[in-house]
Amino acid sequence: PGTAVILAAGLGTRIGGRPKGLLKVAGREILYRTMVLLQKNGIKRFVIVTNERYAPLYREFIERHGFNAELVINPEPEKGNGHSLHLARNRVSGRFVLVMSDHVYGEAFIERAVKGDGLIADRKPGWINVEEATKVKIRDGRVERIGKGLREWDAVDTGFFVLDEGIFEVTARLEEERDGDYPLSEVVERAGLRVTFVDGLGWTDVDTPEELKRARKMLVFTAVKGTGDGFISRHINRKISTRVSYLLAEKVTPNQMTALTFTLGILSAFLTLVNLPLAGILYQLSSILDGVDGELARAQLRTSRFGGYIDSLLDRYVDGAFLALMAYTTLREPLWYLVALLALLGSVMVSYSTERFRAAYGEDAYRAIPALRKLPGKRDERIFLTMLFLLHPSGASVKALLLLLALLTNLRVILTAWLVGRKKS
Amino acid sequence: PGTAVILAAGLGTRIGGRPKGLLKVAGREILYRTMVLLQKNGIKRFVIVTNERYAPLYREFIERHGFNAELVINPEPEKGNGHSLHLARNRVSGRFVLVMSDHVYGEAFIERAVKGDGLIADRKPGWINVEEATKVKIRDGRVERIGKGLREWDAVDTGFFVLDEGIFEVTARLEEERDGDYPLSEVVERAGLRVTFVDGLGWTDVDTPEELKRARKMLVFTAVKGTGDGFISRHINRKISTRVSYLLAEKVTPNQMTALTFTLGILSAFLTLVNLPLAGILYQLSSILDGVDGELARAQLRTSRFGGYIDSLLDRYVDGAFLALMAYTTLREPLWYLVALLALLGSVMVSYSTERFRAAYGEDAYRAIPALRKLPGKRDERIFLTMLFLLHPSGASVKALLLLLALLTNLRVILTAWLVGRKKS
Ligand SMILES: [Mg+2]
Ligand SMILES: [Mg+2]
Repeated sequence: PGTAVILAAGLGTRIGGRPKGLLKVAGREILYRTMVLLQKNGIKRFVIVTNERYAPLYREFIERHGFNAELVINPEPEKGNGHSLHLARNRVSGRFVLVMSDHVYGEAFIERAVKGDGLIADRKPGWINVEEATKVKIRDGRVERIGKGLREWDAVDTGFFVLDEGIFEVTARLEEERDGDYPLSEVVERAGLRVTFVDGLGWTDVDTPEELKRARKMLVFTAVKGTGDGFISRHINRKISTRVSYLLAEKVTPNQMTALTFTLGILSAFLTLVNLPLAGILYQLSSILDGVDGELARAQLRTSRFGGYIDSLLDRYVDGAFLALMAYTTLREPLWYLVALLALLGSVMVSYSTERFRAAYGEDAYRAIPALRKLPGKRDERIFLTMLFLLHPSGASVKALLLLLALLTNLRVILTAWLVGRKKS
Repeated sequence: PGTAVILAAGLGTRIGGRPKGLLKVAGREILYRTMVLLQKNGIKRFVIVTNERYAPLYREFIERHGFNAELVINPEPEKGNGHSLHLARNRVSGRFVLVMSDHVYGEAFIERAVKGDGLIADRKPGWINVEEATKVKIRDGRVERIGKGLREWDAVDTGFFVLDEGIFEVTARLEEERDGDYPLSEVVERAGLRVTFVDGLGWTDVDTPEELKRARKMLVFTAVKGTGDGFISRHINRKISTRVSYLLAEKVTPNQMTALTFTLGILSAFLTLVNLPLAGILYQLSSILDGVDGELARAQLRTSRFGGYIDSLLDRYVDGAFLALMAYTTLREPLWYLVALLALLGSVMVSYSTERFRAAYGEDAYRAIPALRKLPGKRDERIFLTMLFLLHPSGASVKALLLLLALLTNLRVILTAWLVGRKKS
């Protein structure tokens, strides 16, 4: 499909004085998300069906973002939304996407859904209130019954459809029979649409301020990339960082968060000169927050390669500064400085060895070589270890830490090179 | 063109008892090079015209390398090589490449030549003896005269042609007129072939053992990649490394060279414990040799992403080990160890910041952002500086070196990030 029809005529309950499609979740209008993600998946043109009152707002929205979209006015929005679809009949041809303006979809959902056919249904919806959802009873791969009150049902209607122009024969008939007042569900049932399952991915609908929060939560929690996450990240850091991201999703940009995390990290490094336990705790805190910029970027559709690039460089400098200043403040013997130098070298090389892989092969190292994920020594683990060793610091504990880091990191690099060689040479 | 016809029937003078197309230059048969490079540029099928005596050798060659090639036997190889072309007439259709078996072509030449039309001619040949070359006089973009003894000429025949099957009408007429004995040059002149210029790139022909050496030299000297070369590399290291590569091109593989260079580098690092000036000189020597593995790989058509990957990792470890052990053997004060730690961090980060760029953007940083080439602080420059400071070592000179490296490298990383941001965000 190259075109998408968006139904945005419903008067419904407005939240915050704006039509629901223009409400912001994680800093972006609901429709901005849907339209940008559809564009990423090949949709070139949009038809937005709205009412006279909302039209100026949607017009401003379209112009502000430069979308290739036209408005269709439904002068009778109080009638069922099947009529809104009917009004779009002269603006589309062939296959097209039909989507609701008050549904929030994640990237993974839309990627799969646009490749589907008919009604896209979810058998494992994770982010909606099933009681209030529109359910679908399916027979032979097609919709048999659809409605909120069905007793027996197979899946939930996601508000996302891939249709072709044949659907307007059904709406034309319903226009006559019902005097232009019929819900979309009646069109769906009458047409006996095919059903495509897209199960358990991120999507939700928004009717109340509570549901707006749920949508935000959904976006943040499905925004974890995680391919490079170590044990500590998976079991501790991400649990906290996603909650922080949820709290900050409307207020803070990824770049601001990168700057804050870097500042905390550098502060923790200098704190080693004064108080080692506190320095370790602040370092671990910055490690937790280190996930937030990426989560915010994905949730807010603000990912950028430059952001990722700078973030990587800054992480290396935080780690380098921490090791260097911790060594400076605790060590006296040259031999232990030698260990510190090797620990610093190894700790940068852990990242170097995976980034250099991507540079050489053009693919993510953890995806290409899953065995890499099991190697210990990732940043989250090193920082957690550092915090632990610094809780009751002594000369011996810092030395033990540096020796452990020097061995762990450099061994990890050797194993990485070996795994790459086994897979790729 | 999808097919290439290779003329390999001439008896000529054999060097080392083998037909010229099977002579090795930089570890690879001349024809292996031509055929592999043609394959890279879309040629799928080969027709090799040879004589009865050479046929078994060429058959073995084709099978050993698994080429999609068929042999055509010319039972009268003593006749002019125009006849050899004529014999291929039933094996090709449409457009095809015609190429001589005793010419050695570089990658850049073949890339350009296959896109040409007619006779590929060179107005600035760099690797042949012009006196003995076949010259071409051109009029209106077509061959007017061709021959070794032309007084007036415009360019030199490279032995590479892009023809279409119409050429066989010309050979058919010449077959009758000359009783099957006529040189290719007569075909070219009679056909009035179009001329495409490919000027000044690497190609040469081989008739004598001397010319075999010249071909090797050509391959090695055109194998310098150089995008990441610093000032010292351009003006000193490459001048020596290419000569070393020339000497080793038939004997040593890139992997062996990588291992040797790494060993020398690590030795130089440990030598800091004993003799700083010698250590610096050995370090600079390993820096010179660091170019050889890449030059050999390109000259021998043995480049591999894994080779480049490992080479990068090993370089970082040599630099890290050198700095760490040099610091260990000379420094006593924590403050100077702090400087050493920052110098080591910066020296890895110089490479990290450009490799991470490639990982993020999928293109070479020096190509995407030419301003990067002018920043000082590349590996070749750092190592040269290190050698200079260690020639008359004292505590002060090592400290000055470390301070200089710490500032130079980390400043370079900051500027790199700034240039990337200016270009890419
Ligand atoms: Mg970070
Ligand atoms: Mg090297």
